[in-house]
Amino acid sequence: MKEMIESFIHALQDEICNTISKIDGINFREDNWDREGGGGGRSRVFSGGEIFEKAGVNVSVVYGTLSQEAADAMEGGSNLGEGNLDFYATGLSLVLHPKNPMAPTVHANYRYFERGDGNLDGSWWFGGGADLTPSYLFVEDAKHFHQTYKDVCDRHEVANYEKYKKWCDDYFFIKHRGERRGLGGIFFDNLNATSKESCFEFISDCASSFLSSYLPILERRKSLPFDDKQKEWQQIRRGRYVEFNLVYDRGTRFGLTTNGRIESILMSLPMTARWEYCHEPLSGTPEFELLEVLHNPKNWLGMENA
Amino acid sequence: MKEMIESFIHALQDEICNTISKIDGINFREDNWDREGGGGGRSRVFSGGEIFEKAGVNVSVVYGTLSQEAADAMEGGSNLGEGNLDFYATGLSLVLHPKNPMAPTVHANYRYFERGDGNLDGSWWFGGGADLTPSYLFVEDAKHFHQTYKDVCDRHEVANYEKYKKWCDDYFFIKHRGERRGLGGIFFDNLNATSKESCFEFISDCASSFLSSYLPILERRKSLPFDDKQKEWQQIRRGRYVEFNLVYDRGTRFGLTTNGRIESILMSLPMTARWEYCHEPLSGTPEFELLEVLHNPKNWLGMENA
Repeated sequence: MKEMIESFIHALQDEICNTISKIDGINFREDNWDREGGGGGRSRVFSGGEIFEKAGVNVSVVYGTLSQEAADAMEGGSNLGEGNLDFYATGLSLVLHPKNPMAPTVHANYRYFERGDGNLDGSWWFGGGADLTPSYLFVEDAKHFHQTYKDVCDRHEVANYEKYKKWCDDYFFIKHRGERRGLGGIFFDNLNATSKESCFEFISDCASSFLSSYLPILERRKSLPFDDKQKEWQQIRRGRYVEFNLVYDRGTRFGLTTNGRIESILMSLPMTARWEYCHEPLSGTPEFELLEVLHNPKNWLGMENA
Repeated sequence: MKEMIESFIHALQDEICNTISKIDGINFREDNWDREGGGGGRSRVFSGGEIFEKAGVNVSVVYGTLSQEAADAMEGGSNLGEGNLDFYATGLSLVLHPKNPMAPTVHANYRYFERGDGNLDGSWWFGGGADLTPSYLFVEDAKHFHQTYKDVCDRHEVANYEKYKKWCDDYFFIKHRGERRGLGGIFFDNLNATSKESCFEFISDCASSFLSSYLPILERRKSLPFDDKQKEWQQIRRGRYVEFNLVYDRGTRFGLTTNGRIESILMSLPMTARWEYCHEPLSGTPEFELLEVLHNPKNWLGMENA
């Protein structure tokens, strides 16, 4: 199973990078890195493209021994008893920040975790999700993104779109702002229903659906006209993206406090961001309209097209 | 004492704002805000000036009841015993981010805290400091800034420059980067030596020395020529400033998790920031030279001018 997942995420990294490279006419820089303690990763990042301000697609396969604190903080593996601190984790993580403020940022992450020898129920699990973060709201984009992942969930008994959609809205919450980072998507963790095979089938279907969830949106938005004020609003939204990632994101904070490869962890940050004191869009503007749905998440699949 | 401190910090806010306004030819926006639970503040911020990209000088006077967790996390007041959760806190906090990458960002904060009725030794204390964050190293600037605060410390028996200089280097440490935010200055907390009066004399001398610690540096640097690459390096350093404030700064994290006035807390963030994947200045460049002293703090007052 480990080999199958590793081979899958490396092939998917190739496919996604090749596609994004072709769209932007730019190659990813590749960094292969080793982890002290076991394993390593293959990070691919570029910035300053025609279409993307910054794009990163990382995979890692790491293993070794957890600290007791890290183990205690995990739901999975709590049935192993004290002292068994072996772990294995592999995953793919990607963030794309387009230049055009009409084109949304997108993030996806899929991971597999084992504690001990990974054979005991509850000592292995999958986690992941995908979420869309626009600066301007296009309802048809939100619907397409959510519909793609609902269709995936509907194909697998282990998955539940409604539950994962709400989990995503709850997770990507900038508490001090009272707003979500974006329009959500799906998010799940500690998935270990029925068999590893059925969970992996779901995860791999999700991950393989990434390009079809995002590319039609990018295609529609990447060449739309925009002005300086709209670019500035995108920069302010990117500031909020930074706030979420540095203050709340568990993966980022875990990485920063456990001596992970910093540049791979922080590749998720946008290339540029902006903080305006007391910036408040006027009621009735497109900027205000976005904030409304960040404050009050919508059921996109129950809505009419705007 | 409370009245004396409050009156002092409000008058100092006026003096600093008037001076900065005159230098930049721009007025501060003023926001008076109330805190649910007791007290409030007077925030003054502007952005987009000729000299300063963003400038904020805030005062607050807040009081009420601490949560037991907040109380438990404090060193001061631990001698009050359980259940006495009354508190009073007042302070001034300022951050100036100049436009010119040759002119350093500066931060200062001075505060007074009481637990219970504030009369018991160990249930009142002062804290504060000032630190300088340049994008380019000018040794004479570092020397002037440190010398100003050393002179202040030397005038007061309660203070110790060497101790506070090291405390500052240790506090403004971006652990995941292995580098300090800037060139330091002084930092201290839980100051309650001898009498309130002697501590307040030291604090007020520090705070009153702010303009003379910074303006000569600003004057020398604010009109120096610079190019796009130097401006970009400043933006990258501002990204590190954001990383420190959102990941490590106790005041910021305390404010974000306790429902403080978000815009006043986050006024410390620069207006713009940048994250470049794997940005590594070449050895021998001025950018590399700065990183060197961020990795290995210097004793500025023992050095020759560069």
